[in-house]
Amino acid sequence: MSIITLTTDYGIKDHFVGALKGKIISEFPDAKIIDISHNIDPFNASEASYIIQAAFNSFPKGTVHLIGVDAERNAENEHIAMKWNDHFFVCADNGILSMLTQHIVPEKIVAINIHDRLSQDATDMDVFKTVACHLAKGGSLNVIGKEIAVLKQITDLQPIVSKDGNSIRGNVIYIDHFGNIVVNISKKQFIDLGRGRPYEIDIKPRPLKTILPNYSSVAISDKFPIKNYEGEKLAIFNEAGYLEIAIFRSNAATVGTATSLLGIGYRDTITINFR
Amino acid sequence: MSIITLTTDYGIKDHFVGALKGKIISEFPDAKIIDISHNIDPFNASEASYIIQAAFNSFPKGTVHLIGVDAERNAENEHIAMKWNDHFFVCADNGILSMLTQHIVPEKIVAINIHDRLSQDATDMDVFKTVACHLAKGGSLNVIGKEIAVLKQITDLQPIVSKDGNSIRGNVIYIDHFGNIVVNISKKQFIDLGRGRPYEIDIKPRPLKTILPNYSSVAISDKFPIKNYEGEKLAIFNEAGYLEIAIFRSNAATVGTATSLLGIGYRDTITINFR
Amino acid sequence: MSIITLTTDYGIKDHFVGALKGKIISEFPDAKIIDISHNIDPFNASEASYIIQAAFNSFPKGTVHLIGVDAERNAENEHIAMKWNDHFFVCADNGILSMLTQHIVPEKIVAINIHDRLSQDATDMDVFKTVACHLAKGGSLNVIGKEIAVLKQITDLQPIVSKDGNSIRGNVIYIDHFGNIVVNISKKQFIDLGRGRPYEIDIKPRPLKTILPNYSSVAISDKFPIKNYEGEKLAIFNEAGYLEIAIFRSNAATVGTATSLLGIGYRDTITINFR
Repeated sequence: MSIITLTTDYGIKDHFVGALKGKIISEFPDAKIIDISHNIDPFNASEASYIIQAAFNSFPKGTVHLIGVDAERNAENEHIAMKWNDHFFVCADNGILSMLTQHIVPEKIVAINIHDRLSQDATDMDVFKTVACHLAKGGSLNVIGKEIAVLKQITDLQPIVSKDGNSIRGNVIYIDHFGNIVVNISKKQFIDLGRGRPYEIDIKPRPLKTILPNYSSVAISDKFPIKNYEGEKLAIFNEAGYLEIAIFRSNAATVGTATSLLGIGYRDTITINFR
Repeated sequence: MSIITLTTDYGIKDHFVGALKGKIISEFPDAKIIDISHNIDPFNASEASYIIQAAFNSFPKGTVHLIGVDAERNAENEHIAMKWNDHFFVCADNGILSMLTQHIVPEKIVAINIHDRLSQDATDMDVFKTVACHLAKGGSLNVIGKEIAVLKQITDLQPIVSKDGNSIRGNVIYIDHFGNIVVNISKKQFIDLGRGRPYEIDIKPRPLKTILPNYSSVAISDKFPIKNYEGEKLAIFNEAGYLEIAIFRSNAATVGTATSLLGIGYRDTITINFR
Repeated sequence: MSIITLTTDYGIKDHFVGALKGKIISEFPDAKIIDISHNIDPFNASEASYIIQAAFNSFPKGTVHLIGVDAERNAENEHIAMKWNDHFFVCADNGILSMLTQHIVPEKIVAINIHDRLSQDATDMDVFKTVACHLAKGGSLNVIGKEIAVLKQITDLQPIVSKDGNSIRGNVIYIDHFGNIVVNISKKQFIDLGRGRPYEIDIKPRPLKTILPNYSSVAISDKFPIKNYEGEKLAIFNEAGYLEIAIFRSNAATVGTATSLLGIGYRDTITINFR
């Protein structure tokens, strides 16, 4: 199988995404193209970083992930391709791969150097498309780039543990489609630091004392229909493994969302205190 | 052909839909995945019900329709799979299939019971994905579930006929992309009840006395260009077979839409009076 | 390869696009369907015209482009199919093909005449679907229509050159996902008229004196990080070959967009003065 996934900030109204797909299948008719998202916040590398690390491992090994966010090549922004955990990533070196590479060291990273081989009016997407098709066909990284050792990192994606080890302070890294709040505290970090201690997530007006196994668990009594709990706040670890502050069955038009009800926004801090 | 359609309220910004597709093709590389909608109003089972019944029969028999709306399994919300009219539907038993099954009795419904066979951290979508791939490969319902007799129904999807049989009162069940208003009165119900009698659709400030065969028929005189009729209200039966109140060439930014111009919203009542 | 692209104003919430795809693969299971856009401004033929001419040539020759914008057939709006530059286009004759055909004469245009051969309740999309599948399978235009000589044109898509040849006045024909402003002055027109003369693009409060080769070139000094230039206005020719007024790394939520910062909207005029 030759899968190429697309993650961009191009939106879905313009012709860009369709044109990119047209170029890919012109070059590699058997490519299976799958959209991850085209609604990344414009030029927001950390949002792209969260989305790609949350999505990639649902795909088979060997998949090529093309990321078109802040992709224009310039003196500060090199085009790169990376092999990591048996997946391939093609993007600009602007921190987008930070959330992946903070956990597992890449097998190989190259700075793409095929620009001179393309026509003079080749766009950044022409470069990415050419590299992605090459890799999806089973081509080697060496053919399209020169090996490099390190990637640019986005540094604000890591939560901070207090000196006494009794609290961890994270940041909101993503607001999802339902208005749920994703915090950069992973389940692993929570378990390692907490070691089973009681805890409170510091949310106004009342802290959350439990991280639930799933949303419906907010219905603590079976005397009432589950519908009665709509609009209640809760915390879970989402399927990407990160802390999520959510409203049960959130809907902006009816019960409200975590962002609208709790007044928490992108980049805000969320602290878990252990006792 | 092995087609799996997707209808969810996951939106298109998050990684959920891409990840779901990745899981499907990981398990069943030959699956042809087609999006119906990912913008169902969050947790709105009746909206999902309308969309799926409007879309399904454009697909070949044997198609598997995966519906991810209010899909979390809990004491009130069982996972089901249904064979109906030679199509398969995989969803939660929350009323989503009401608009289908009110007309044709299902061939077979099963309560999905494969949860114990999946890994412990399997999500609801992992369950649906596994079942959908099984069915798309030609697998049997018996292997993945235990037969059940009845489905939960959404009861407010049926219009009410007056005792004297001279009027029918429906509800707005959907507002479409153009701002057109879809009412739960079907063409069949209208014809059966009306038996050719004159009628008025009770809309302010002036009732509509004709349901047109198509939008352009609002241009009753060919002395004027059709453009002159932009912004006029009209009624038709849409291609899904339901009454639609529309504005000719509606556009929120220019001539306005049925919702903005007529002040009618989701769930509002619309009555047709026969004489 | 049998590619069918879709460009519509149907939006992505309703079932229309999914249903259209279902009908296409029911009729032609091997069709490769690629979305160009479903978010064309409703009934906006000139916006559709820009998008389709910007996207089509990223696809292989022989691709069939189905355009569902203002597609209802009526006395003024005939269904047509066109072969042009080795691509096929299926749409209503409402000006949508103007931006293509103003530069290259079509090889063949037919008025579709298969309506009588379809079932009585066939929709406009059923007609387009049937024609698109026929052409994608390699069928001939003569089988599905009667040759016609000319197409309807949208006349306001052409910029105006002053009598003295010292200025060219264009119009904003598109606002893209990033809020960038696309003007109907092509790179070719600019070069032909300017013949290397200095120029100013008349934008408030200060004119732009350079059309950059790419966005990052706005960073004129390498003493500062490129980030310092975020929010600066600039002009480039976009990859579709049209003048674009942009904000560097524009984002409505952070640095702003060309539309929000410069107060320029759809249809507004933009003039380039040569010296």
